[in-house]
Amino acid sequence: MSDVTSETENGLDTETAHGWLSNQDLQSTRARVPIVYVDAVPVRVNSLGQVTEIGMLLRQAADGTLSRMVVSGRVLFGELLREALVRHCEKDLGELALPRVPPNPSPFTIVEYFPDPDRSGFYDPRHHAVSMAYVVPIEGDCEPTQEALDMAWYSPEEAVSTGVIAEMTGGHDRLIRLALAHVGRLP
Amino acid sequence: MSDVTSETENGLDTETAHGWLSNQDLQSTRARVPIVYVDAVPVRVNSLGQVTEIGMLLRQAADGTLSRMVVSGRVLFGELLREALVRHCEKDLGELALPRVPPNPSPFTIVEYFPDPDRSGFYDPRHHAVSMAYVVPIEGDCEPTQEALDMAWYSPEEAVSTGVIAEMTGGHDRLIRLALAHVGRLP
Amino acid sequence: MSDVTSETENGLDTETAHGWLSNQDLQSTRARVPIVYVDAVPVRVNSLGQVTEIGMLLRQAADGTLSRMVVSGRVLFGELLREALVRHCEKDLGELALPRVPPNPSPFTIVEYFPDPDRSGFYDPRHHAVSMAYVVPIEGDCEPTQEALDMAWYSPEEAVSTGVIAEMTGGHDRLIRLALAHVGRLP
Amino acid sequence: MSDVTSETENGLDTETAHGWLSNQDLQSTRARVPIVYVDAVPVRVNSLGQVTEIGMLLRQAADGTLSRMVVSGRVLFGELLREALVRHCEKDLGELALPRVPPNPSPFTIVEYFPDPDRSGFYDPRHHAVSMAYVVPIEGDCEPTQEALDMAWYSPEEAVSTGVIAEMTGGHDRLIRLALAHVGRLP
Repeated sequence: MSDVTSETENGLDTETAHGWLSNQDLQSTRARVPIVYVDAVPVRVNSLGQVTEIGMLLRQAADGTLSRMVVSGRVLFGELLREALVRHCEKDLGELALPRVPPNPSPFTIVEYFPDPDRSGFYDPRHHAVSMAYVVPIEGDCEPTQEALDMAWYSPEEAVSTGVIAEMTGGHDRLIRLALAHVGRLP
Repeated sequence: MSDVTSETENGLDTETAHGWLSNQDLQSTRARVPIVYVDAVPVRVNSLGQVTEIGMLLRQAADGTLSRMVVSGRVLFGELLREALVRHCEKDLGELALPRVPPNPSPFTIVEYFPDPDRSGFYDPRHHAVSMAYVVPIEGDCEPTQEALDMAWYSPEEAVSTGVIAEMTGGHDRLIRLALAHVGRLP
Repeated sequence: MSDVTSETENGLDTETAHGWLSNQDLQSTRARVPIVYVDAVPVRVNSLGQVTEIGMLLRQAADGTLSRMVVSGRVLFGELLREALVRHCEKDLGELALPRVPPNPSPFTIVEYFPDPDRSGFYDPRHHAVSMAYVVPIEGDCEPTQEALDMAWYSPEEAVSTGVIAEMTGGHDRLIRLALAHVGRLP
Repeated sequence: MSDVTSETENGLDTETAHGWLSNQDLQSTRARVPIVYVDAVPVRVNSLGQVTEIGMLLRQAADGTLSRMVVSGRVLFGELLREALVRHCEKDLGELALPRVPPNPSPFTIVEYFPDPDRSGFYDPRHHAVSMAYVVPIEGDCEPTQEALDMAWYSPEEAVSTGVIAEMTGGHDRLIRLALAHVGRLP
């Protein structure tokens, strides 16, 4: 979720006409309004459309810890949600991931991240973010970018196991359970 | 929706252990309980997941007319909904259609077909059918089977045009509008 | 889910024009086609619409055990799903329950009950049932009918606790978790 | 959608700790990031949960015209979506409206308003807003506030009639059709 880092690594550390903000402007905006986010839960599906595996990245989370997490990031000024979903999937999973963003614009849930961990159970120390969450089948090959240390696939049972949950922070383990329930695969 | 025809043409005019019924048993069952159906609205999507076209078959409808319609058919005893969706898509669109049944089991709407045309606006003279309707992206090539005279793709604007609506019966034109609304593409 | 019992207790043990079947006809139909069902998960909501409690009945389940379960029952020939939902809620929770069936016809999930416990994880020894499941806010007072021994409300945390799960059979504990996930309240 | 007006009329024209922004800060923020909005389509439902009427306000729209529109407004920093929905419903429909915000947090659609009318078909000259849209049953009495000149209820047929559509701008007529489709009542 470290879109500040992402912007910097892309050399976009100054405000542009395309929705990027300088770090300073982003900080001040974050203190004023909720930020629009998208979360994408990468999945593998079989020929019947059933989810067989869930993909998770290992990377530095918003709270500074090294965590397992789904694809997540900010929507830019002027950007369609679909464009943001594809951009973040390709940035985090590689250009060959071939994400299949669902045709329905309605997310399976809305995740409300607050700086106060007790407000909703979803926590982000940096800001109040309203994130539209989608289950995104991945048809291609994933290759985590340099920001992520690892990208791994888990069966539904593994994804809700104690060991994997212990590697997640900020409520991402609960997001995984909501996604599995949505697709009828919550154990 | 002529699953009677389909069963007969497949040589399955006697009851088997796999959920097929003889025509006589099917008739008597149809007079007693609602029949479980699935409707699949075939769509083409672009790389952002937006629906660009809707596919419709030209074939004999339940009321005997030659009509434009989506893929529709009965769920058999012991069959998963997903299996029925893939089976009917492959039967109507060909083996190379590559339907992408969505991972979420919840349909975008439920179509309640009644022998009384005024009951719900969805009409089937043969029975009371409860149909779970899905939008199904098609990635492969479609080739209508011998039951269908034609299979054509329409833009969202064409699909709701007066001319195309006039070719549909039984409420299928309304089903198309509900599907387009669900994917945010209703003009 | 014992709609056979219900029909008998209402004195409707012979086939009528209104969709009721004799026990014998129901048995033979059940062996031939999937049966259309509705499941209603009764909930209490606060003024913001958040689910605060889930209601469960204690009654004889399809497998003969005494179990905790949600409202569940068959859709009759000629009956709208909405009519079936209200009928079963009033039959199981009393005339003063005031169920608020959601305006959206799409269920939050589809539960496929099979006589084979391993087919989908949802089990019913009597038949293959395809059940459309809804979360139904209850605004009135509940009074379990004579078929149910008890009706109790549980917090989301209690509803997924080991003790309560142990009182459920046939996959109803999983249905509760899917319902809680749908409303964003899965712990 | 004139939340600037609303804030001013409530005497909140200076930034506070509760998420309100001064007009100047709001302007500068609007040029930088998408703004989080909620849209509520007020409906009347019958005892089966079917939508019988849709409510629309007559008020000054974002583009300055006097238009028919649904309840719509900004989500404040630190505010839950549910709190924003109830706040805007009560502000626009009166304290006695008794809005029933659905228990499911997932909106029926996402409306992406852009300053460019051709970007998505939803237009707002002031900003890029990402609005989560909900169908909200209203159980109480509505009394439009001083900002609205009128509040009226329409049948589904009236709501999509040429006359009523002509009174709407910015894509609100399309939003009404999407809402009617979602609840299965699109004519």
